Amino acid sequence: MNANTSFFGELLTSIADRGRALLDRGSRVSGATKAATLVERCEDLLSGKGEASGVALATDILDRYGRMKTGERIAFFEGLAEQFGPDRERLDKAIESYRRTGSDAATAELHAASEPRRQELFRRFNLAPGATLSLVRMRENLMDAMAHRRDLASVDRDFGHLFSSWFNRGFLVLRRIDWSTPASVLEKIIRYEAVHAIRDWNDLRARVDSPDRRCYAFFHPALVDEPLIFVEVALMTEPPAAIAPILDQQRAHLEPTKASTAVFYSISNCQRGLGGVSFGNFLIKQVVEEISREIPSLTTFVTLSPVPGFRAWLDAERKQDTSRALSAADREALKALDDPDWAQSEAVRADLIPALSAAAASYFLVAKTNKGKPVDPVARFHLGNGARLERINPMGDLSPKGIAQAAGLMVNYRYVLSDIEKNHEAFAGKGEVVASPAVRKLLRADPSPRALVPVP
Amino acid sequence: MNANTSFFGELLTSIADRGRALLDRGSRVSGATKAATLVERCEDLLSGKGEASGVALATDILDRYGRMKTGERIAFFEGLAEQFGPDRERLDKAIESYRRTGSDAATAELHAASEPRRQELFRRFNLAPGATLSLVRMRENLMDAMAHRRDLASVDRDFGHLFSSWFNRGFLVLRRIDWSTPASVLEKIIRYEAVHAIRDWNDLRARVDSPDRRCYAFFHPALVDEPLIFVEVALMTEPPAAIAPILDQQRAHLEPTKASTAVFYSISNCQRGLGGVSFGNFLIKQVVEEISREIPSLTTFVTLSPVPGFRAWLDAERKQDTSRALSAADREALKALDDPDWAQSEAVRADLIPALSAAAASYFLVAKTNKGKPVDPVARFHLGNGARLERINPMGDLSPKGIAQAAGLMVNYRYVLSDIEKNHEAFAGKGEVVASPAVRKLLRADPSPRALVPVP
Amino acid sequence: MNANTSFFGELLTSIADRGRALLDRGSRVSGATKAATLVERCEDLLSGKGEASGVALATDILDRYGRMKTGERIAFFEGLAEQFGPDRERLDKAIESYRRTGSDAATAELHAASEPRRQELFRRFNLAPGATLSLVRMRENLMDAMAHRRDLASVDRDFGHLFSSWFNRGFLVLRRIDWSTPASVLEKIIRYEAVHAIRDWNDLRARVDSPDRRCYAFFHPALVDEPLIFVEVALMTEPPAAIAPILDQQRAHLEPTKASTAVFYSISNCQRGLGGVSFGNFLIKQVVEEISREIPSLTTFVTLSPVPGFRAWLDAERKQDTSRALSAADREALKALDDPDWAQSEAVRADLIPALSAAAASYFLVAKTNKGKPVDPVARFHLGNGARLERINPMGDLSPKGIAQAAGLMVNYRYVLSDIEKNHEAFAGKGEVVASPAVRKLLRADPSPRALVPVP
Amino acid sequence: MNANTSFFGELLTSIADRGRALLDRGSRVSGATKAATLVERCEDLLSGKGEASGVALATDILDRYGRMKTGERIAFFEGLAEQFGPDRERLDKAIESYRRTGSDAATAELHAASEPRRQELFRRFNLAPGATLSLVRMRENLMDAMAHRRDLASVDRDFGHLFSSWFNRGFLVLRRIDWSTPASVLEKIIRYEAVHAIRDWNDLRARVDSPDRRCYAFFHPALVDEPLIFVEVALMTEPPAAIAPILDQQRAHLEPTKASTAVFYSISNCQRGLGGVSFGNFLIKQVVEEISREIPSLTTFVTLSPVPGFRAWLDAERKQDTSRALSAADREALKALDDPDWAQSEAVRADLIPALSAAAASYFLVAKTNKGKPVDPVARFHLGNGARLERINPMGDLSPKGIAQAAGLMVNYRYVLSDIEKNHEAFAGKGEVVASPAVRKLLRADPSPRALVPVP
Repeated sequence: MNANTSFFGELLTSIADRGRALLDRGSRVSGATKAATLVERCEDLLSGKGEASGVALATDILDRYGRMKTGERIAFFEGLAEQFGPDRERLDKAIESYRRTGSDAATAELHAASEPRRQELFRRFNLAPGATLSLVRMRENLMDAMAHRRDLASVDRDFGHLFSSWFNRGFLVLRRIDWSTPASVLEKIIRYEAVHAIRDWNDLRARVDSPDRRCYAFFHPALVDEPLIFVEVALMTEPPAAIAPILDQQRAHLEPTKASTAVFYSISNCQRGLGGVSFGNFLIKQVVEEISREIPSLTTFVTLSPVPGFRAWLDAERKQDTSRALSAADREALKALDDPDWAQSEAVRADLIPALSAAAASYFLVAKTNKGKPVDPVARFHLGNGARLERINPMGDLSPKGIAQAAGLMVNYRYVLSDIEKNHEAFAGKGEVVASPAVRKLLRADPSPRALVPVP
Repeated sequence: MNANTSFFGELLTSIADRGRALLDRGSRVSGATKAATLVERCEDLLSGKGEASGVALATDILDRYGRMKTGERIAFFEGLAEQFGPDRERLDKAIESYRRTGSDAATAELHAASEPRRQELFRRFNLAPGATLSLVRMRENLMDAMAHRRDLASVDRDFGHLFSSWFNRGFLVLRRIDWSTPASVLEKIIRYEAVHAIRDWNDLRARVDSPDRRCYAFFHPALVDEPLIFVEVALMTEPPAAIAPILDQQRAHLEPTKASTAVFYSISNCQRGLGGVSFGNFLIKQVVEEISREIPSLTTFVTLSPVPGFRAWLDAERKQDTSRALSAADREALKALDDPDWAQSEAVRADLIPALSAAAASYFLVAKTNKGKPVDPVARFHLGNGARLERINPMGDLSPKGIAQAAGLMVNYRYVLSDIEKNHEAFAGKGEVVASPAVRKLLRADPSPRALVPVP
Repeated sequence: MNANTSFFGELLTSIADRGRALLDRGSRVSGATKAATLVERCEDLLSGKGEASGVALATDILDRYGRMKTGERIAFFEGLAEQFGPDRERLDKAIESYRRTGSDAATAELHAASEPRRQELFRRFNLAPGATLSLVRMRENLMDAMAHRRDLASVDRDFGHLFSSWFNRGFLVLRRIDWSTPASVLEKIIRYEAVHAIRDWNDLRARVDSPDRRCYAFFHPALVDEPLIFVEVALMTEPPAAIAPILDQQRAHLEPTKASTAVFYSISNCQRGLGGVSFGNFLIKQVVEEISREIPSLTTFVTLSPVPGFRAWLDAERKQDTSRALSAADREALKALDDPDWAQSEAVRADLIPALSAAAASYFLVAKTNKGKPVDPVARFHLGNGARLERINPMGDLSPKGIAQAAGLMVNYRYVLSDIEKNHEAFAGKGEVVASPAVRKLLRADPSPRALVPVP
Repeated sequence: MNANTSFFGELLTSIADRGRALLDRGSRVSGATKAATLVERCEDLLSGKGEASGVALATDILDRYGRMKTGERIAFFEGLAEQFGPDRERLDKAIESYRRTGSDAATAELHAASEPRRQELFRRFNLAPGATLSLVRMRENLMDAMAHRRDLASVDRDFGHLFSSWFNRGFLVLRRIDWSTPASVLEKIIRYEAVHAIRDWNDLRARVDSPDRRCYAFFHPALVDEPLIFVEVALMTEPPAAIAPILDQQRAHLEPTKASTAVFYSISNCQRGLGGVSFGNFLIKQVVEEISREIPSLTTFVTLSPVPGFRAWLDAERKQDTSRALSAADREALKALDDPDWAQSEAVRADLIPALSAAAASYFLVAKTNKGKPVDPVARFHLGNGARLERINPMGDLSPKGIAQAAGLMVNYRYVLSDIEKNHEAFAGKGEVVASPAVRKLLRADPSPRALVPVP
């Protein structure tokens, strides 16, 4: 840029030059060599060199990583797994000392000595500008690799540990998403929506720029344009039983001051690389607070949620010779589902409702995983947050996806302030599924838990 | 605010009510009881309850802590030290398993099991709005308490560990401080300046709003109005030998485009509670880059630095019967320092210069701590960053503070891009103090390291 | 919202109530009555009442206007035209006094007395929140009405006068439009693009979010989300001869630092209601300055401009029995244009180029309006800004629009800093069209101005 | 900055070079010549040259003006007054045409022709970056010159006209001033406070950063750091009778939610150059709205206002042989005022209260200017805004300034929403001073308006 160039730029160049010099010794560099070089750089970064020129070194490492191909990256992950665990010698001494003294200091040293060197390495990677997002993307690559490489789990564990600390709730910022939001963010809302796909910019606009719609997302200051999680909310006069009217772009708008019910109809995590760090619980509660303040007339907070495991469970149940979840009449009625076009006929739909409702009640209230939790992952999320299962809506989502995963079923979970803690404790402590009387009533008298297919 | 009140507000109230109910059983609550209650709350926060209503619970805990008196706080710290260490039983099992298998998974479990429960507790504290600053302040209280209570060191260690992760360089934001900066920040610049006190708003303005002055600070997004560290820079035509002309509010201003030298004349850490997390190294380097870009004519980057340990070292040296740092003639000359008004007389000052210069050269180049590092803490900082000791300036600071701590001496450290890494390695690896030939020449031929007083 | 309600809200309600009371006397209010009521309100606003509750009154007037139908609005404009001109009595006195004394004070009073009362009325309308945009829209309605109602010209003149003062260059803000711009603004870029239509959000993104594209707009602080005018720029290595490669979304991108030429390929005015206030001149010059600073390698600034009047002029010229603009050979060659599909054939296109080029040279250099200016409005704009006509590009735009209005012709105008003032004066003073030698050479030796069809 | 330099910079340089060339003909340039050159430039700016390079030319003119000395500036103003009035020839023709036809078009032309050329000149000045503030400052210079030079009034009138249009209420932005406001703005609050001087930054902080204090200012987008007018507000439980407790930095703070009364205790215009453009009326009303929304418990909005003309009026009245405003007993009591230390004695103060109160009642309710308005300028402002005179507070301000200008007297004006319009009309139409019964009761039975000294 100018004769002086930038201090940082020069530093970076000198580091890169040295790197190139090293590499140029052999005329063609193999992927394995590239990964080895990168691992060497990581050692530099952890050593004294990192203290003098850490920013430049970290920048160089992430740049090189960014240009690598899949195989080279896996080789690099292997290097991380093998060479950057804890210092075993130091760890053995620490165990010795802990056994001998049991002192606080010895315990602290034991904790420090057992920390994989990767953790400090990742913290130093973060010196580079824009590194936080690069690290999230690096973990996505790692997750892909782990499908075949279980030995990389220790690296993944370190990412998880670090991200839990960095993406602590206290550092997240809630921002409303609307039509004055930069296009670079809105584009990602379109891309990351995972529940009810956003077709195009018009569909997006209907969801974020209508008087009776709201959208909120959590952001982290180091990831400016990248939402972490977002929720879409409809303002209504009562809890909805189906998704189609909510997504309909031609629907009439409700004046917000006339709304009594806020409906959370879609929650999407945006960053696969942040898997294991949970935001949804906090997001829902803060949004409840935010819109309560904006619209004092709101009294009811519910979701309209998918039931992703229902159809698979139901099919398995129907295959059993004797399922206590299903009565003989139910079984008979459910045969209609075998016709792929069942949802086209109003009569068929009407006939199916009682059997589907009863089966769903079993699915939620009786069926359990090996760990004694409900089978449905969405149910585990909301019940774990202290919500209760409010209503079962057969024919809630007759889109191909809704039919395929839940035979068209959707449910409402309800968040009642004064019950949240009690509900959460009942669920966490005793595995109890808190449900409305209406849902309980759907349960056939007979079926006992023992007879149900256990789900892993 | 309205009939609906806020969701969060209600949650908070219900938690506080329960707390009060508990407390009201006894008519007067002692400090010990208060601390005990708070510790109980911390257990709740770590347990399942924290998941349902963590934000409210964390807020309540920090509020209660905020209203406590010193004694109560110490009692609370004791609770943290005693009850929130690692789970010993789990730890013993983990050691067992590690010894048996040595597997990655066992190592990971060992690390997890040795983590004090405080760490997760502090992370959950951070759910509360504004908690990050509260935690920094809490650690300040802890540091005060630790003067007498060494048993609290384990709690302090956990703060330090957490803050190193949270205040990672990658999350800091560099901001220029000038006259358009909010008063709430400027006020803190006045308060936190630790090297050359800022007398009032006029003095501040001269330092941040003159064409040939710059001021930069690091901020963390969760601590909006609180600078973490800041540096004051003077744009000059050559490295300065004294501080008074720089601080003089009546001085003539230099047009920035005519400057060749950027002088870092004051660096202050702002948050005592972040002790142990180092920012200065990064700050200097990023500011060099920033002003290089703004003012391409700059070629030289130096500090004008205090020498806080010099006078004490010199006095000790003079008390020795035979000091190899001081020649007999030097000793004689230095007697002038015993007159408290020595700096008033130009002749006395002129006479002192050779002896002070020679002594300073020994102080920097020869005297060492037990660990083999230079005695002077400021020297350790800049040399560790890769700077070199450029020039010794006797009579650099004739203010009462300058006379008291350094017999008026100041020095320049110089940052030369291409030497930073080399210098750092020489210093870190071999304890070598990189100094200019001019400084080296000041060293009397004679004195040998062996004869010098070791400094702890 | 609360028991106290807002001061302003109450004021507004009380004014509206009074209005309703008045209106409710008759059971059904005709359009004429509505207009009359609005005119009465305007009198209130100009009177003392406006001083006490001007904001509320202005808000009420603009609200009522906003709900009116076309006929009612025209009736309201008639009221403005008839009842809010200058006070004739005062004006006659002022003329008398001016004739008698000719003093400065008398001249000032003459100016004040001749000011239509509409001007002050419009200034008071602007008390209402958001009024500036409402006034711009009101003028758009007026312009529509004026198609049939020439008697409303005086009202239009007052809008024009006021907007010239309010939208003074000094109050405009230049902002870069890119992918981080709010969607609410980007949407308007799509809508307002008047030269080369933007098909959808992908097309938009290609124009504002590619490394070798820039887009800048002028905004006024009172019209937050509404661009006034914007320009699209392509960074290239030489002036382009055709528009299609620039708009091609699949084209290869140029690294900005390798660009030597900035091409202004589209300039669109956004607000019809601001007709007569000129921004384009300032926009081009400020953007030249802006991108010069960003990309120092740029040396050449040109447009790629449409020639909207060329085809109509050419057809008229061809219909003349003897046109000095066209040689017989040219006339013969140009017959190919009568085949609507002429642009499909490469051979036909090649044959047409000489004749079209020669005709274009006449069109720009020889043909004049009655006022002695070039026939082409785009030419008048750029030549008036001090640019020169650089190159004629037959086959520059073979889109249906380009063929219809200019037989596919486009031109480059070039902005050379040191010539701007000279060029402008030659053009403004002597009507001289400054053109490159290459363009001049295209002119057939023969044709004389006298023979050309004058254009109104 | 770079080889290309900036387009605008070059343009500017070329214009300045030409100017210098002109000036360098004579070796020393007199002030008169400088002014003449500037006037020439102004002609250029109004001519065609202004269209091509207007921004550069305007910048050059304002720079030159900025470096001029007082005498040179006055010479320049003379040039503006003499050479930039309306075009008399065109004006005479326009009058002729108007007399003949009386048409709308002729009227419009008459208005256009009578516009001084200065108006367009000033609008073109505003092309330069930062010009709006320069023009405000230029008018301040003009106002100073006008003390002796009444012939410059026409120039002043044009500034006034233009500023009324540019600083229209619709373009102003209300911003709260608090401790997070940039120091550059706060510094101006200190400097511009005109009623109760702000002693230093601590005093400022007490006024803008206490829970029961508010400060609001109007800003114009083109004058970023310059407040136009600001008001200081105290939140209290009842209308105050004296200023000292409000300004006391040691006072106890009131929790805002407990406040019932908002007290406007200081309103200061900041820009002398904007004299004649009125903001105060709008400011008060918008602030009432703003704090009503923030603090719903507020029910009463009053001022605590100085009475700047009272002492002078009282002294004049006392000098009259027979004043109907003062009874014989009052006259006797008021003699105490002749002792410069009268306010030191509690007894004296108590004795003075009845006479001062009665005199004040006459001052406000009976005394009139030649135009039939109240003598007091502050009274004219608030009564004109629709407030009523609520209470007279003798001993309201015992500072030297308060004693000097009002014998310690202060008053409260009260803003009651539902009465604002009625009050304003009574005052504007009939000159009626709306006052509370308590104030009316203070009026002695006797005194008649005739007997009062008229005030110009």
